[in-house]
Amino acid sequence: MASSFGAVKRLIFGRPLPSDRLDHERLSKKTALAVLSSDAISSVAYATEQTLLVLAVLGTAALSYVVPISAIIVGLLVLVVLSYRQTIFAYPGGGGSYTVAKDNLGTTPGLVAAAALLTDYILTVSVSISSGVAAITSAYPALAAHTVGICIAAVALLAVVNLRGVRESGAAFSVPTYVFIVMMVVLIGVGLYNLGTGAPVQVVQPVARPVPGWAGLALTFLLLRGFAEGCVAMTGTEAISNGVGAFKSPGSKNAAITLAWMAAILAAFFLGTSVLARHYTIMPTSTETVLSQLGRRVFGQGAAYYLLQYSTFAILVLAANTAFADFPRLSSILARDGYMPRQFMARGDRLAFSNGIIALAVVAALLIVLFHGETSALIPLYAIGVFVCFTLSQAGMVAHWLRLRDPGWQRRALLNGLGAIATALVSIVQIVTKFTHGAWIVTLIIPLIIVVLRRIHRHYENFAREVSYTGQSPLMFLHHTVVVPVNGITKPAAGALVYATTISEDVRAVYVAVDPEVSERLRHRWEEWDIGVALTVLESPYRSIMRPLVTYVNDLVERGHADLVTIVVPEIVPRSWSGHLLHNKTALFIRTAFLFRPNVVVTTVPYLIGRSARVRDGATREDPIAEPAELTAKA
Amino acid sequence: MASSFGAVKRLIFGRPLPSDRLDHERLSKKTALAVLSSDAISSVAYATEQTLLVLAVLGTAALSYVVPISAIIVGLLVLVVLSYRQTIFAYPGGGGSYTVAKDNLGTTPGLVAAAALLTDYILTVSVSISSGVAAITSAYPALAAHTVGICIAAVALLAVVNLRGVRESGAAFSVPTYVFIVMMVVLIGVGLYNLGTGAPVQVVQPVARPVPGWAGLALTFLLLRGFAEGCVAMTGTEAISNGVGAFKSPGSKNAAITLAWMAAILAAFFLGTSVLARHYTIMPTSTETVLSQLGRRVFGQGAAYYLLQYSTFAILVLAANTAFADFPRLSSILARDGYMPRQFMARGDRLAFSNGIIALAVVAALLIVLFHGETSALIPLYAIGVFVCFTLSQAGMVAHWLRLRDPGWQRRALLNGLGAIATALVSIVQIVTKFTHGAWIVTLIIPLIIVVLRRIHRHYENFAREVSYTGQSPLMFLHHTVVVPVNGITKPAAGALVYATTISEDVRAVYVAVDPEVSERLRHRWEEWDIGVALTVLESPYRSIMRPLVTYVNDLVERGHADLVTIVVPEIVPRSWSGHLLHNKTALFIRTAFLFRPNVVVTTVPYLIGRSARVRDGATREDPIAEPAELTAKA
Repeated sequence: MASSFGAVKRLIFGRPLPSDRLDHERLSKKTALAVLSSDAISSVAYATEQTLLVLAVLGTAALSYVVPISAIIVGLLVLVVLSYRQTIFAYPGGGGSYTVAKDNLGTTPGLVAAAALLTDYILTVSVSISSGVAAITSAYPALAAHTVGICIAAVALLAVVNLRGVRESGAAFSVPTYVFIVMMVVLIGVGLYNLGTGAPVQVVQPVARPVPGWAGLALTFLLLRGFAEGCVAMTGTEAISNGVGAFKSPGSKNAAITLAWMAAILAAFFLGTSVLARHYTIMPTSTETVLSQLGRRVFGQGAAYYLLQYSTFAILVLAANTAFADFPRLSSILARDGYMPRQFMARGDRLAFSNGIIALAVVAALLIVLFHGETSALIPLYAIGVFVCFTLSQAGMVAHWLRLRDPGWQRRALLNGLGAIATALVSIVQIVTKFTHGAWIVTLIIPLIIVVLRRIHRHYENFAREVSYTGQSPLMFLHHTVVVPVNGITKPAAGALVYATTISEDVRAVYVAVDPEVSERLRHRWEEWDIGVALTVLESPYRSIMRPLVTYVNDLVERGHADLVTIVVPEIVPRSWSGHLLHNKTALFIRTAFLFRPNVVVTTVPYLIGRSARVRDGATREDPIAEPAELTAKA
Repeated sequence: MASSFGAVKRLIFGRPLPSDRLDHERLSKKTALAVLSSDAISSVAYATEQTLLVLAVLGTAALSYVVPISAIIVGLLVLVVLSYRQTIFAYPGGGGSYTVAKDNLGTTPGLVAAAALLTDYILTVSVSISSGVAAITSAYPALAAHTVGICIAAVALLAVVNLRGVRESGAAFSVPTYVFIVMMVVLIGVGLYNLGTGAPVQVVQPVARPVPGWAGLALTFLLLRGFAEGCVAMTGTEAISNGVGAFKSPGSKNAAITLAWMAAILAAFFLGTSVLARHYTIMPTSTETVLSQLGRRVFGQGAAYYLLQYSTFAILVLAANTAFADFPRLSSILARDGYMPRQFMARGDRLAFSNGIIALAVVAALLIVLFHGETSALIPLYAIGVFVCFTLSQAGMVAHWLRLRDPGWQRRALLNGLGAIATALVSIVQIVTKFTHGAWIVTLIIPLIIVVLRRIHRHYENFAREVSYTGQSPLMFLHHTVVVPVNGITKPAAGALVYATTISEDVRAVYVAVDPEVSERLRHRWEEWDIGVALTVLESPYRSIMRPLVTYVNDLVERGHADLVTIVVPEIVPRSWSGHLLHNKTALFIRTAFLFRPNVVVTTVPYLIGRSARVRDGATREDPIAEPAELTAKA
């Protein structure tokens, strides 16, 4: 079994880990900040840019709106983070929106949250990777032609790292996050200093409002859409509360501290980026990101600029990695609850949920291919699911407090209620303002996922009901007849007969006669052979092997000669693929023919060409099936 | 089993025929001439043209060579036909080149003949069909763009007709052959009459020899190549002697008469076409065949011309049909001798060798696609194999007469010997003159086929030696342990246990524990269940289901607890394809894991979701496997 495939697998994915190491695979606060906050913090790479992209129709007047909009989003962020802090303490086992919504609001809200989360995890990977690659192609425009290829390679790398297991992925990825944080601090610091000292910065004053052609309702709608797109900065905020279970003890306290740090860093970076973009008069282009333009203006085309771009790429890859931790975990919870296929429930050799990781990588890569790796095409699909989850999760918490009524429940319920109302409003703004820009896809897919989850659940429920068994004693006497189709006196046939006589006293060898001459010869040889098993010759006027056999077995059962029939088929197993072309697939045909027939079991007794194939090194016993000839001497 | 697939199959291929109708499917002389001579006679559609194509570099001077070359070929034809006449009487069962060469010269010459015949049958289909379609596109140039498509459709039609059985194909195809014969007689008659009366024919005198740039060795080589290409007229001559077995009694006499008729018709048509082409100064073009040009000149653009073209197409389709009769027959003989896969040996529902027919159609269609349906590109590959077979067949007959020494054997041996020498020389001329024009492909493929035939033979020989069994009594006492992997107390598990206790007294239910909590619960329930079968819980620290099971079973065998172990696996059979995604393929994994292990048999007990699936209408017995719950009441 130790094949070369196994060796390659170990090289790439590492040695199997025993289940009792599961508890050791937990994250310290510092590592958790790198692994679980990267999604939120990395949003600064595209959030400001998305708002500017929407407002670009206003010309540089857009710049006068970007800072107020960013400030509103930061306010919303603070509200949501305070709200989630309560969830962390209420659900120390990892309070994902699915769990909170399902426990407190019921199954349907839970499934809405689950569907929204699943789509958002997928989009986190697609958006983060394509945005990360945009950071690279901003620095090296020649690579732009290979965008999709680089994206796919990055997704594949993430999948492999995650299949190795969660702790190693944390350790491997901590450094780049901190480099990004340092680079952003330096960028914003130097940028603001330059602005303050009036150093070599060319500050352009935005043109005055109102912009021609944009006023009243149209302008309001445009600004709302800019706000909706900017809200993408808040994606990933829920990662820490979903992942409380991955923290070292005390989980809740560590998670809450990490959440606070994350929020502070995100708010500072997002606001800082927007302020700098406004004062450096930076507008988005199709070939270079806003952050790259900022870096170039603040640092010049030097090492610091390239380090900023590399670390932007690195933290966005980490952001995608968050989804690689959360998607499989949610899938396994859904599978445990019977809403996703059971295959998502099992941990693989390395304690990671292998099937979830693979499924996520495949779907995210597909999205990247479909949208040609363009961040701005993918982003309108994003954030909707996140805000739906925010809403459901916080509404769930309100129900939670109303039910528990702990000391101070009123204050907590009020905070979560405020958060729920605010994020519900933002959800509606998201759907309405971005609907024609791709949001319609998400509003179709989320209900579709809910339908699929429900159908899977119904299948498992029906299955469980169907297979449930309350009878007491399945042991009973059955008249058991064994039919052995033979085509001559050969070792495979003899092996099958050895097996047949071992499992029943009523054994019938059956030969389907196509050529009367050949069958007469066999009948004669069989009599000489004289092994105590009678040979039945079935005539086949139409030369079919199957039809007479099926009729014979059906008759046995229907005429009451047998309660149960086993067909023992000698199956030739060739050593090479070409051998398969040279032997009829009779065993397979017989199995298929009787698959849907009651009272019939088909057993194939494999006969491997080349006797050594079934005799292992150091085997101490002979194989009565593969080597019936040797048994004759013993008998 | 009476599915809609079966209904469609019957509609296209007809109802199954019983084996005893085999003898009735034989051909009268008239039908045989249509079915078996069409290959030879139809050669006039391209033989003259091929010679002219080669000689075209000489300009119209080519025309002065075409009649002498044709006359030499007709002389060769007469010699070969007289030689084959002797074969027909010596081998009344159907003396194909393979049989004659193998019986008289040994295995290797036999296999050379077989390989040459197989390639030639394939080329007969490709060349005849593409030439037949050229007759149509000559009449309707607009169809030329669809050449390949029409060719493939024709091949598919032939395959279907032949899968229906040999007599019906004869009956369906007699009429067009005779129409072609009539049209050719009229064409040559009217053409010669016009020439004699000096009617509206514009006869151009070919320019005088020598042609500039072509003299001596170069001219000789060119003329030899022209001769070699013209020899394609003789392809198909062997069809009648191969097919003696398909004639009505007395087979040999009827076949000999048909052969004589065939030779006379072929000789007259071939010479006639060449004479007319010479005197009407017709040179080949890439858009119209020589025969079409002749028809247009002799008949004008009227109904007679179109009838000639249609019947040319029809007889060429019949020629391809000859190969559809012979290729499967030769394949079945080779399969019977162990040189081709056994699947070629069996006759299908309609008494035709279905697999041979399908294989021929696929390979011939492939060749047509590769060569874009161009006759002149395919023809250089053709005829080589035919002449190799002529040579081997007649050399074999010489050996035959030398061995038998019947009265008159000297005369017969001399005739066959002359034939063998002449065709051997032509074979060499074929290979040498056409080598760079595609003949090299055939000289590679024939040895390759021989290697494959030999390897297949070696496989079957080794297999027969390996499975041969001379032991007397395979019946013996074996300690038989049955292992039933269960994952809970369910109907599938209970069904498997019913089966297990039926086939052995030593039954062990085995549960692989991944989660200690769940396994403790099952252990407890199992004790309560109390069915008399103990539950063994196997720990799985690495969460693998397979590894602990494999170790457990190996231990059973190696520690001598069991001579033989059967693993009875309850297998969930879902009703829909989506169901397969929702259930683990444990049964398949277990079967695969133990396929190469001695002393172990894996039996899957199918459990079909939806009980009605395994309960047929009107079934009088309950299924103890599918419905163990009901048995409790009975027990």
